[in-house]
Amino acid sequence: MSVNRQWILRKRPVGEISPGDLEFVETPIRALEDGEVLVRNVYLSLDPTNRIWMSDQDQYLPPVGLNEVMRGGTLGVVEASRSERYPEGTVVNAGLSGWQSHTIAHEATLSPVPLLPGVPLTAFMSVLGATGLTAWYGLNDFGKPQPGETVVVSAAAGAVGSIAGQLAKMRGARVIGIAGGPQKCAWLTEELGFDGAIDYKNEDVGAALDRLCPNGIDVNFENVGGAIMDAVISRMNNFGRVPLCGMISGYNSEGVAAGPTDFGRILMHRLTIRGFIVIDFIPRAMEAIAELAPAVMSGQIKWKAHVVDGLENAAEAVKLLFTGAHDGKLLVRISPEP
Amino acid sequence: MSVNRQWILRKRPVGEISPGDLEFVETPIRALEDGEVLVRNVYLSLDPTNRIWMSDQDQYLPPVGLNEVMRGGTLGVVEASRSERYPEGTVVNAGLSGWQSHTIAHEATLSPVPLLPGVPLTAFMSVLGATGLTAWYGLNDFGKPQPGETVVVSAAAGAVGSIAGQLAKMRGARVIGIAGGPQKCAWLTEELGFDGAIDYKNEDVGAALDRLCPNGIDVNFENVGGAIMDAVISRMNNFGRVPLCGMISGYNSEGVAAGPTDFGRILMHRLTIRGFIVIDFIPRAMEAIAELAPAVMSGQIKWKAHVVDGLENAAEAVKLLFTGAHDGKLLVRISPEP
Repeated sequence: MSVNRQWILRKRPVGEISPGDLEFVETPIRALEDGEVLVRNVYLSLDPTNRIWMSDQDQYLPPVGLNEVMRGGTLGVVEASRSERYPEGTVVNAGLSGWQSHTIAHEATLSPVPLLPGVPLTAFMSVLGATGLTAWYGLNDFGKPQPGETVVVSAAAGAVGSIAGQLAKMRGARVIGIAGGPQKCAWLTEELGFDGAIDYKNEDVGAALDRLCPNGIDVNFENVGGAIMDAVISRMNNFGRVPLCGMISGYNSEGVAAGPTDFGRILMHRLTIRGFIVIDFIPRAMEAIAELAPAVMSGQIKWKAHVVDGLENAAEAVKLLFTGAHDGKLLVRISPEP
Repeated sequence: MSVNRQWILRKRPVGEISPGDLEFVETPIRALEDGEVLVRNVYLSLDPTNRIWMSDQDQYLPPVGLNEVMRGGTLGVVEASRSERYPEGTVVNAGLSGWQSHTIAHEATLSPVPLLPGVPLTAFMSVLGATGLTAWYGLNDFGKPQPGETVVVSAAAGAVGSIAGQLAKMRGARVIGIAGGPQKCAWLTEELGFDGAIDYKNEDVGAALDRLCPNGIDVNFENVGGAIMDAVISRMNNFGRVPLCGMISGYNSEGVAAGPTDFGRILMHRLTIRGFIVIDFIPRAMEAIAELAPAVMSGQIKWKAHVVDGLENAAEAVKLLFTGAHDGKLLVRISPEP
């Protein structure tokens, strides 16, 4: 019988994730029942929302229970099967199967990963996965940029923001990205075709927005919250839209996250702020994939993965999301690709 | 030559409107030019937004200039005409013609007031005017209550809230109103058919919401802002909608208005907050009138006007909006109905 390696949530982090909050353990793997498969996880997705799940704040899924396997999305390969639908060797999206080397899953909870020519498996954990879908639905259902409008994307070099910005460019909008550091900013303007980039670590964001958005801001694709969101919203035009899919600036803080300083602006300028979570859109995933997959295969949409090797490094790697020291969609490679 | 009586904005109020902020003056009325009419104003609408217009804060129309006639909506009768479209005696909606006894208006800026059997002229300054339209568009375009959902209306006995609540009832929703004082609350539940009312002057709003909204809140039709809005938003269900058409709690304050304490709730519960201003919907007014007019004529929708006699009392009367000492849509009767 083989062994499962798992990260267990032992304590709820206070502020940054600390040693002892998560524990790396080995557990036996039980026998399969009819309809089940054993997935050898290959990639684990690390996302800002992991920090929310570790807390017991009000959130969109139940918090991960103490002494339970940490929640996380994985892609893997079927290593043993008692399912006709998923024979051994099938590459599957195992959903939120957790920070673990193996997952026993019922066939009803899996979905097959299509193998597209020239598209690496990591794409299905990023641009063709939850982060790409987040960008697509937020932009198309809520942001709705029109040709010539100005779109500002926060965390623009991130896995969501970089796709949202490129989609906004494809819609004919003027796109300004906010990112941390000159390398990320250069990537936005030189590789992704953004019309401008603001290095929030080295620039006054408000002054840069004034310079780069002379006609105001129509859409704020918002990942960050806090002072950066405030700077953007305070410059929004009438009828502006704020698809809000994250507030990473507050995730390591105790207490609640503040909104825009001047809430009256939402009224006076007839703004719409819309919170959304990608899990609500999974049933509609194919709408997004229909545009994203060809654009990825042709190279029209560019994306990056930052792969950390070894499940044992997950608890340290997840911290990269909060310093921005990663470069692209953050993944852990748990085992070799098939 | 007759004389115009006008309220002139002399100083921007600091906090509450004070003596000397507005001055009541008499000025001569000039001769008409081709296409113009002289409107004898009959009713002046007093609205919370008047206080915003007196200030120079960021707002949706230019602030009223110092030493200019105070802005306000009026209904009047054509007293002299050089317009074929509007002969003497025509009852007209004179738009934002100002706090004055007479208005010289070009025919292009007027609209006729239909005379409906059994419907007093004051209805066109309330339920069939800007406040009724605000309720209708906010509820139908943004609130979209579904049968069985719970709708909470703030300032529910006000000219907007009372109509929004009745429309929500007509859509099959459970409707709870928040109002000031036992008389207003009794009007909501006994006359308008609200399912519950909360007297914010004498009750703990949060505790009352918990009691009256056991299934949470799906729509918050929001007029008030501040602590009352916060109490409602903190109890909203997933996918809740907040049509936001006013924040009266902050209009007499210097500085900016705060939003919900816990902005993360918008994200976690996928809420939509949408600011809107009725002036954007004037071109679509007939959509709302088509439902509101028959409902007013049949008595299905109930409404009240609180009429203060005498234009000279306008500057004192407008303060009623901020104490809640009025009872129904606040109007000033400037001159007799024709």
